[in-house]
Amino acid sequence: MNRISMLIATFTAVSALSATASGMAPEDVRTLISPDGNLSMTFSLTEKGQPCYRLDYKDRKVILPSTLGFDFRGPAADPKFGFGEKLTVLPYGEPDNFHEGFSVEETDSSSFDETWSPVWGEESEIRNRYNELAVTLRQASTGRKMTIRFRLYDDGLGFRYEFPEQKHLTYFVIKEELTQFAMAGDHKAFWIPGDYDTQEYDYAESRLSEIRGLMPSAITGNSSQTPFSMTGVQTALQMKTDDGLYINIHEAALVDYSCMHLELDDSSMVFTSHLTPDAQGWKGYMQAPCKSPWRTVMVVDDARKVLASRLILNLNEPCAYGDVSWIKPVKYMGVWWEMITGKSSWAYTDLPSVKLENVGYSVCVPNGRHAANNENVRRYIDFASEHGFDQLLVEGWNIGWEDWAGKSKDYVFDFVTPYPDFDIEELNRYAQSKGMKLMMHHETSSSVRNYERHIDAAYDLMDKYGYNSVKSGYVGDIIPRGEHHFGQWMNNHYLYAVKKAAEHRIMVNAHEAVRPTGLCRTYPNLIGNESARGTEYQAFGGTKPHHVTILPFTRLQGGPMDYTPGIFMMDVEKLNPENKSHVNSTLANQLALYVTMYSPLQMAADLPEHYQAHMDAFRFIEDVAVDWSESRYLLAEPGDYIVIARKAKECREGGPQWFIGGVTDENARTVEFALDFLEPGKKYEATIYADAKDADYRTNPVAYSISVKKVTSKSGLKLYMAPGGGFAISVREL
Amino acid sequence: MNRISMLIATFTAVSALSATASGMAPEDVRTLISPDGNLSMTFSLTEKGQPCYRLDYKDRKVILPSTLGFDFRGPAADPKFGFGEKLTVLPYGEPDNFHEGFSVEETDSSSFDETWSPVWGEESEIRNRYNELAVTLRQASTGRKMTIRFRLYDDGLGFRYEFPEQKHLTYFVIKEELTQFAMAGDHKAFWIPGDYDTQEYDYAESRLSEIRGLMPSAITGNSSQTPFSMTGVQTALQMKTDDGLYINIHEAALVDYSCMHLELDDSSMVFTSHLTPDAQGWKGYMQAPCKSPWRTVMVVDDARKVLASRLILNLNEPCAYGDVSWIKPVKYMGVWWEMITGKSSWAYTDLPSVKLENVGYSVCVPNGRHAANNENVRRYIDFASEHGFDQLLVEGWNIGWEDWAGKSKDYVFDFVTPYPDFDIEELNRYAQSKGMKLMMHHETSSSVRNYERHIDAAYDLMDKYGYNSVKSGYVGDIIPRGEHHFGQWMNNHYLYAVKKAAEHRIMVNAHEAVRPTGLCRTYPNLIGNESARGTEYQAFGGTKPHHVTILPFTRLQGGPMDYTPGIFMMDVEKLNPENKSHVNSTLANQLALYVTMYSPLQMAADLPEHYQAHMDAFRFIEDVAVDWSESRYLLAEPGDYIVIARKAKECREGGPQWFIGGVTDENARTVEFALDFLEPGKKYEATIYADAKDADYRTNPVAYSISVKKVTSKSGLKLYMAPGGGFAISVREL
Repeated sequence: MNRISMLIATFTAVSALSATASGMAPEDVRTLISPDGNLSMTFSLTEKGQPCYRLDYKDRKVILPSTLGFDFRGPAADPKFGFGEKLTVLPYGEPDNFHEGFSVEETDSSSFDETWSPVWGEESEIRNRYNELAVTLRQASTGRKMTIRFRLYDDGLGFRYEFPEQKHLTYFVIKEELTQFAMAGDHKAFWIPGDYDTQEYDYAESRLSEIRGLMPSAITGNSSQTPFSMTGVQTALQMKTDDGLYINIHEAALVDYSCMHLELDDSSMVFTSHLTPDAQGWKGYMQAPCKSPWRTVMVVDDARKVLASRLILNLNEPCAYGDVSWIKPVKYMGVWWEMITGKSSWAYTDLPSVKLENVGYSVCVPNGRHAANNENVRRYIDFASEHGFDQLLVEGWNIGWEDWAGKSKDYVFDFVTPYPDFDIEELNRYAQSKGMKLMMHHETSSSVRNYERHIDAAYDLMDKYGYNSVKSGYVGDIIPRGEHHFGQWMNNHYLYAVKKAAEHRIMVNAHEAVRPTGLCRTYPNLIGNESARGTEYQAFGGTKPHHVTILPFTRLQGGPMDYTPGIFMMDVEKLNPENKSHVNSTLANQLALYVTMYSPLQMAADLPEHYQAHMDAFRFIEDVAVDWSESRYLLAEPGDYIVIARKAKECREGGPQWFIGGVTDENARTVEFALDFLEPGKKYEATIYADAKDADYRTNPVAYSISVKKVTSKSGLKLYMAPGGGFAISVREL
Repeated sequence: MNRISMLIATFTAVSALSATASGMAPEDVRTLISPDGNLSMTFSLTEKGQPCYRLDYKDRKVILPSTLGFDFRGPAADPKFGFGEKLTVLPYGEPDNFHEGFSVEETDSSSFDETWSPVWGEESEIRNRYNELAVTLRQASTGRKMTIRFRLYDDGLGFRYEFPEQKHLTYFVIKEELTQFAMAGDHKAFWIPGDYDTQEYDYAESRLSEIRGLMPSAITGNSSQTPFSMTGVQTALQMKTDDGLYINIHEAALVDYSCMHLELDDSSMVFTSHLTPDAQGWKGYMQAPCKSPWRTVMVVDDARKVLASRLILNLNEPCAYGDVSWIKPVKYMGVWWEMITGKSSWAYTDLPSVKLENVGYSVCVPNGRHAANNENVRRYIDFASEHGFDQLLVEGWNIGWEDWAGKSKDYVFDFVTPYPDFDIEELNRYAQSKGMKLMMHHETSSSVRNYERHIDAAYDLMDKYGYNSVKSGYVGDIIPRGEHHFGQWMNNHYLYAVKKAAEHRIMVNAHEAVRPTGLCRTYPNLIGNESARGTEYQAFGGTKPHHVTILPFTRLQGGPMDYTPGIFMMDVEKLNPENKSHVNSTLANQLALYVTMYSPLQMAADLPEHYQAHMDAFRFIEDVAVDWSESRYLLAEPGDYIVIARKAKECREGGPQWFIGGVTDENARTVEFALDFLEPGKKYEATIYADAKDADYRTNPVAYSISVKKVTSKSGLKLYMAPGGGFAISVREL
């Protein structure tokens, strides 16, 4: 008995299938079954020796046979130069084929089952249970090896490429990863354009076959954007099959690698991985031993299970930090929306251009619209501290905002020098005297070398004044020029900034950074990310109402989003007469987002005066928790509606324990759900913040009603959601 | 009288010429005369309104009418994307013409004459005397302005482009600088291939018309190289005309700009500037007010005047530092040549690859060839301290050398962790107890982000142990990938490292960095650079003997070179049987280099045991000074020979005051020169280290004779130099 068959014989969850019609030897086919038996992944080699997998859900085909592997960069031409009339640099040779000619050298199987507790999250305990199959392949012609490790969960598949330490493969450059995801039909998809630099797009809902036609209208303007294909889309890509399966493709644990997009062959409905290139077009610089991120295919038969899935988190490594006591969920306000809407400015002056090394701000004429001034910041502190917020973000506090965007300016900020009207010492003292902290802001303008040059001093400054969290930003094209937001170079940077922050016990909320892939499990001081179209776009022309019914299926699969909800004044014109944008949401919908858009970092984004006009509704934002012991996904359909109930991890004395949020798309709908998650026998009081009957996100968004109702675990609720509306409920034990 | 004519009328050195036949209006022609009246620069506008200059030496044409200006990057296409079968990114539009359509708006003239004292140098006082003409031009179609500032010295011209603060030109991207240097004939040139990444080429001597044919053989291999044209050459480019003029084209004060190469149109003998591109092919990101480096054209009628010229230093800004007491010339030895020759290794182990975060060196098997070990370093310290050296360079002291080169490895060094056999604390203590310092070594492997991430900790470590100088290195292709050694991005880095070092009172000697352009005047802690083919190539197959007769005319025009002379064992095979290289130099030639190759940083590069075999000759290296109050260029012809005498700024009690060095190319020659620079009436003793009669760099390189002779200011010397040979003389007052 050889080692392979011995391993198979001793592992019950893995059984050899008989050879298929394609002529493969039986020993080259391996099947992996999920713990609940519903999912089945079959690995095989094609006739050309190309690794291949397929995935089935019960008797339904999810991923048709799909090949795996790589093209590496070929060897450089030798000699390197051509001398004729012109001097030419000779190219690299043919791609180095690392996807064919493999044989199975070894397979290894195991099962895993543990329950772990996240530092913060949607629930206090997460079960991580899977069956695993590791197939070690050898390419005979080169002697090089690769292990493909598959983990099959009840709700999906994860697999990654591993390059063990070996003689014939040490340093290599990825030309392209060739991972296929062959779809079994022309599914409905919720997608945004594949892009090396931004995810800030509105979602399209269409058949896969319709992507090409919709692409031109899907690509809307952004300060940095590099779409690459008429059929390129981003992950997490949520799909729905005609027979009711929900398939979600994403990646987990994106570390020292380029972010993966999906490119569709819309004649065959096969997606192939498309990695983000570097400035020279290469996709990754590798040194064995090393590995790719996990490629994930979630498959469930109910949309609520997508929201409940912990597949991405489970595929990440456990927490890398010993002491995590300094990592705390944060509810915050910000001196921010008034700049986003154009009411105020980040900049202190109207100088057309500045050079930080020369400009003498103390003698410059202020523009009178600078929001981060002492008086205004104190006003926000007073309001926020009175209403129990943890922190106040202040943007535009530091010099350089006059010409920070779109100039490809290297030395754009120093991250340590406040404008003359921002007394950093006094304002921090004032905030702390009221039990709050200020939140630091590091907009890098994507001048990343400059940020790294100043990051030590910037974090030191935070230590000095008692900041413990930073919102960082990467607006605009990356410097070093030619690199992309989602390439290996930048992914390395984002994690560098997070790890360095941890040394200072600082939490990071990075905007415009690569989309999350569950790294917050390993580095829980990565407390938030933007990486999608956030609330700011409501002031940049508006966002489709269905947006918030899709994000939890896509963007949020990888980790929390700093979506910055809580807008109470929907006519942006009221803040800035020149800005005709409208917030496409009802007020009740805004409240619901604190529950439906999970994040341990939640902002109340609007201005104090707008909250003061609706203190009854604002009460929900005051009450709502930001960390949860339990979450129940009551109703969900991507693009249509989501209703979620969550139990607070810590409750305020006498405050609510449970919070329920519901959102709908542009369609009004009435939903019914049971409260059977409440403790039987106990009595509760539910405060319901609902759309008024005549509410409508377009014409009457601030029409809401607040009602109080006694409920128990036997109660049910039937609630109306207006177009673009929703509801929020707090439930207090009596 | 308008302002222009008023300015002209009040400045005697500038006179308007009459209009030329090309139809220019008289007021658009300005002539600038050098202080001694020999050089004349004429500025004009062409019929198309293109700025134009020409340069004459007495009645001889040096630069024929040559146009000036730029192509800027055109505007990005709008809309940015094309949607057809494939998605395409639309290109930038036509280049933005900034070289035509100008009119003269203002001219401004002045004279300048001052004498300044360098912190270190070839002489203790330098006269900076020039006449200046600044021509402010306006491009009517755009309203944009540019000033071209010309400075005419007795030995050459400098000019630069200045972009004042203005409404219609703030941020712009250079597509190409279009500065012409139209030669008046097919001159002889001493050139190396134009290259974005290396200057480590042997020189070719040829007519300009022969460059194209010689290019394929001139491009020899390097670990990072990007030649760009069959007629591209580097600066400083030394030329000689058939009627005996020496023309040298270079640049001065290369700050926040890309390094300039020259591309020859060999049908017309016109050079055009060719800037080093970035990863995307653009040549410079600019924000007005800003300026280009100075473009320089040195013109003299005697080769010795090229060596005596201070044109490049004078065009740089004065010293930027207040206190310079910490900047000291350095004579040093190094644990280096034994690795260069392959006798020993930089690496502590023979592991095929390492990851710094994982490798446990303390449990690894040492390879037994690691030179930077405690015992060996102590041996060098003992020898070097006994013979009056200031410092000992130790390379290979830090972890990571196993796979440092050519792997495009990001985290390649940490710059702070010694190998287990290098006791950094004890060795520094030991060196300091003997009156010496160790010299730090930071090889970056061109992983520049990684270096910048560690540079603070690296300098802090130096502070901790008492290092005050660092040799840095940039071997291999740059990371960020696609950037080049000589582009704006890297030039910014080099200066960043120098300025940051100054905060720590650290002196920098950067290898493989951009060629110097006189910045050591402004930042005198930039105490050395390599930036040319140094002595190491004698162990990499050898260098042509004429090399050292050319470098002072070319590479050294911009600043000192850490050439690392002093090799006494010419058969490299004796160090490493597998290395068949031969040092193409006699021992006397090696000694001469301490005088002919000016540097405030001089190494004795060979091993202690090789010096111990020739302690009589080594005496010269012990005696020779590294800082000078006076230099006399006695004989010189590029490519043939150089004889220089220098007076030490500080003399050892009873030691020599004057040092004379002479080198020849592959040809033997006998030279005669007078010692009339000695103080009249005083008596001196000259110790002459000369080639033996039968010396020859190929067959008998270590044949030398040492003689002592009484001399006065009325003496003359007649000395034989063998092929590849030379002589060194120390002169002591009696």
